[in-house]
Amino acid sequence: MNVQTNAVPAGFIALPFKGDEHFLSLTGPLYAKRDGEKLVLGFRVEQRHCNIGGICHGGMLMTFADMQLGLGARFDSEEDIGFMPTVSMTADFLAPAPLGAWVEGRTDLLRSTRNFLFCQCIVTSNGSPAMRASGIMKSGGAPSNLKGLPNLRTLLK
Amino acid sequence: MNVQTNAVPAGFIALPFKGDEHFLSLTGPLYAKRDGEKLVLGFRVEQRHCNIGGICHGGMLMTFADMQLGLGARFDSEEDIGFMPTVSMTADFLAPAPLGAWVEGRTDLLRSTRNFLFCQCIVTSNGSPAMRASGIMKSGGAPSNLKGLPNLRTLLK
Repeated sequence: MNVQTNAVPAGFIALPFKGDEHFLSLTGPLYAKRDGEKLVLGFRVEQRHCNIGGICHGGMLMTFADMQLGLGARFDSEEDIGFMPTVSMTADFLAPAPLGAWVEGRTDLLRSTRNFLFCQCIVTSNGSPAMRASGIMKSGGAPSNLKGLPNLRTLLK
Repeated sequence: MNVQTNAVPAGFIALPFKGDEHFLSLTGPLYAKRDGEKLVLGFRVEQRHCNIGGICHGGMLMTFADMQLGLGARFDSEEDIGFMPTVSMTADFLAPAPLGAWVEGRTDLLRSTRNFLFCQCIVTSNGSPAMRASGIMKSGGAPSNLKGLPNLRTLLK
């Protein structure tokens, strides 16, 4: 199979996490672009992301959705909230993301309160829906100046 | 910080996934032991599992819970169902799993139908609840003889 694992669609840049973000260094990089007022994340399914069925492991898709929810909701919100721990996340696996597929996601911020962001996202594989996820992120009281957290609005002007 | 990343509690063995299981090779190994009729999975939180907050990334905990739910429910069921794709999973993040913590989980199979296993699990960090997860796994129609899927009942007699 001819898998172009380095092929990243035009407009995407690698998420510039510093060395402190070890799990995304291990499993990523993830890529980001701005689409109007939306943050779009993406990655290409490589062999290292796959399960024994030869498709992207659910753990990798949930890792991606967790980032798409948190960073996407943060991008949607009016102020820069900084690091937001996930309180709860639900993922529905609609279709597999096969080896070589380009995966990307878009987030809708449904409600922002003093303490929580309620959001949902659709993750696609080669343009077709592969996962629906919803998340509750904690926005109040978390440290906002953690090292290594990029300001995506500044970066993706 | 003195982190004994190689310290695995007595009775656990590394899950013997073959080279086909790339994502768990990348993020694991996960460990397994039998506790009566229950399957207990576990892993030690290493730096490569951590986020910028210095705690285990939610994506790694969800990867672990996905495996604990699927393999734990399969262990609980009377017949060897084989590979079970996850249809839906919900994870509540109760408390962080810090660097160096030993994480483990136990699954309850709530209902088994011709097509689905409904299950839930509690994941602990150093013995305290860190995540609650529930899952719906597809049990009917999936290939049962995928290479690399260990028979844990045989292995953990």
